[in-house]
Amino acid sequence: MAGNRRIGILGGGQLGRMFLENALRYDVDVHVLDPDADCPCAHLATSFTLGRFDDRDTVLRFAKEVDVIGIEIEHVSVDALMELERQGKTVIPSAATLRIIQDKGAQKKFYKKHGIPTSAFALIENKADLQRHAAMLPAFLKTCTGGYDGKGVMAITDTADMGRAFDGPCVLEPRVPISKELAVIAVRGTDGTTVAYDPVEMVFDPTLNMVDLLLAPARCATSIIDAAKALALDVANAFNAPGIYAVEMFLTPKNELIVNETAPRAHNSGHFTIEACASSQFDQLLRAYMGWPTGDTRMHGQAAMVNLVGEGGTGTPQLKGSAELLAEPGTFIHLYGKRETRSGRKMGHVTIVAPTSDAVDKAVKVAKAHAKVVPQEKNKTKKNTTA
Amino acid sequence: MAGNRRIGILGGGQLGRMFLENALRYDVDVHVLDPDADCPCAHLATSFTLGRFDDRDTVLRFAKEVDVIGIEIEHVSVDALMELERQGKTVIPSAATLRIIQDKGAQKKFYKKHGIPTSAFALIENKADLQRHAAMLPAFLKTCTGGYDGKGVMAITDTADMGRAFDGPCVLEPRVPISKELAVIAVRGTDGTTVAYDPVEMVFDPTLNMVDLLLAPARCATSIIDAAKALALDVANAFNAPGIYAVEMFLTPKNELIVNETAPRAHNSGHFTIEACASSQFDQLLRAYMGWPTGDTRMHGQAAMVNLVGEGGTGTPQLKGSAELLAEPGTFIHLYGKRETRSGRKMGHVTIVAPTSDAVDKAVKVAKAHAKVVPQEKNKTKKNTTA
Repeated sequence: MAGNRRIGILGGGQLGRMFLENALRYDVDVHVLDPDADCPCAHLATSFTLGRFDDRDTVLRFAKEVDVIGIEIEHVSVDALMELERQGKTVIPSAATLRIIQDKGAQKKFYKKHGIPTSAFALIENKADLQRHAAMLPAFLKTCTGGYDGKGVMAITDTADMGRAFDGPCVLEPRVPISKELAVIAVRGTDGTTVAYDPVEMVFDPTLNMVDLLLAPARCATSIIDAAKALALDVANAFNAPGIYAVEMFLTPKNELIVNETAPRAHNSGHFTIEACASSQFDQLLRAYMGWPTGDTRMHGQAAMVNLVGEGGTGTPQLKGSAELLAEPGTFIHLYGKRETRSGRKMGHVTIVAPTSDAVDKAVKVAKAHAKVVPQEKNKTKKNTTA
Repeated sequence: MAGNRRIGILGGGQLGRMFLENALRYDVDVHVLDPDADCPCAHLATSFTLGRFDDRDTVLRFAKEVDVIGIEIEHVSVDALMELERQGKTVIPSAATLRIIQDKGAQKKFYKKHGIPTSAFALIENKADLQRHAAMLPAFLKTCTGGYDGKGVMAITDTADMGRAFDGPCVLEPRVPISKELAVIAVRGTDGTTVAYDPVEMVFDPTLNMVDLLLAPARCATSIIDAAKALALDVANAFNAPGIYAVEMFLTPKNELIVNETAPRAHNSGHFTIEACASSQFDQLLRAYMGWPTGDTRMHGQAAMVNLVGEGGTGTPQLKGSAELLAEPGTFIHLYGKRETRSGRKMGHVTIVAPTSDAVDKAVKVAKAHAKVVPQEKNKTKKNTTA
């Protein structure tokens, strides 16, 4: 095998699975902890442990057999990670980084302290406290902890909305004019060197409140591309610890960049790197875990990523439209191995890599028109056999 | 999952493992048959069956649970494949293709019949028969069946060598002047469309009689690149069946191309396509199995592949030099998950993808100087702990 460091990952979802797909090439040992026995990583890891990654003792027991601990979800026991750092294990991202990231209020204060541009904000203790900040409306209210994929965020347009507000520690951010939403994956190696991928442009589906389409590189002036990469590297350096940092930012109509939030892990906005770049975000993570140098972020052309989100209800997932989609040059499918599709659940994604943005746009249209994950029709095979 | 065709692969070595690494992305069912319970695919396949792929009944039993049958080694039961075709299953490569490929004499006659340029040859029945062809020396003698990785081939320089010749059906080929050895992966889709990758230039290690270094594209005039691709497509079309065809050819000092031999499967000479091309050879194979269109063969720059061959004896494999190697931009490691390294055994490979051939050459030097698979030193960890 490629090295003698055994890796343990907290979480066994699709991010862990894509990490494993790359790690298999290097024949490294990867152990996974997840509470779902049927999670996407369960049958691919070197060993799989059933258990809660947000439980301190469970994480400490799991980590006994590994040298490096990584995450694929933020909601893990930071107390366990701090203890593991004390024991001398390599923890990526660092426990200190994760403690800041887990609390949106602490994250905003961190940006402010380190001179990272971010929107104005007020820290709110509870629903009553919100009344003092009527002057900031219209605004977004975000719970400090526990938010995920659009959950824990609400728009507060006027004082009438305050009655249904979250009642607990929150961040209140006045609505900012946005011309584009961008994200940059920044990488900080174990030797302190940093590299960044080209920024991506995220197009949200307003119904699902989820990224629907992602274009890479973002279709912006070179000066903005360069500024976005520099800003993401500033964030990585402010955290001052090895790992990968998915830095989500807003581009304002005045061409200012402000950081929205950071995920200190592999991220949906970096999936295009698997086919579109030399080293993928998952390869960077493996290199960090193993103590190897950072990888090459060079892009192989223009790219897009389209999320495949469950449609049409609950059931065993079936992908429709693969033949139509794969007839477009430079198209690839990822399905995450989830056993059940549900409307709105992330089931996979499509990546497109082509020499020109026109070719990318053409394939995106085909993907959106044809590629769908739906529940399998029951007894369909039998019907065809007797037809 | 991406489709309802279940795939069965005969053979569970490194080619099967690299196929699985890509197939995992599409969440397709892949079943593997191999006689070694510890083979590289054993723990990654959807299901693994222990058994001989050259045994007709074993293959037929294994194939009951799948819709498509593929191979990762030629030495399988062709009788079983013929029966599976009769049953209406999809078999790639076709049984007829494999029957020709398995017999080097039949393969030579096939090229002659289809107007594919190949070297002159004589079919030899046994050692005594060889005497009649003294006029063809110096020549190479190849056993019609059972040869692999340099085995079953010998040089017959003069009549004195005839005494130690193979005694059985053989092909005798007069030595041809060679300026380069090239290989092209040609792909024929289930709809009959064909695509070819850029040719690679194979550099053999004379000691190991194994490809040591491979450059892609081959460093030849464009006219030769184009002619090599056209010749490989001629071979694929002559076989007239879906699949991938690794066509090894010689470039003579007169710039003529002649076909040496073809492997109707994924091949060492196509490993560079994993990182250096849009769709890899393994992605093409998956597309053929699933009945999807052929993939994009576009290259992402200049590339090289260096085989990692076991050195220093037998034992648990350990890779040395990964940090030095991975510091070069665009470098990637593949280790095949074999449990034991032996001197001369293929244990993995290194791929290099860079914008220029100079950058590739620099990284090749680093790979050759540093990357080595050797047996693990026993009790090394313990020694370090007590030091």
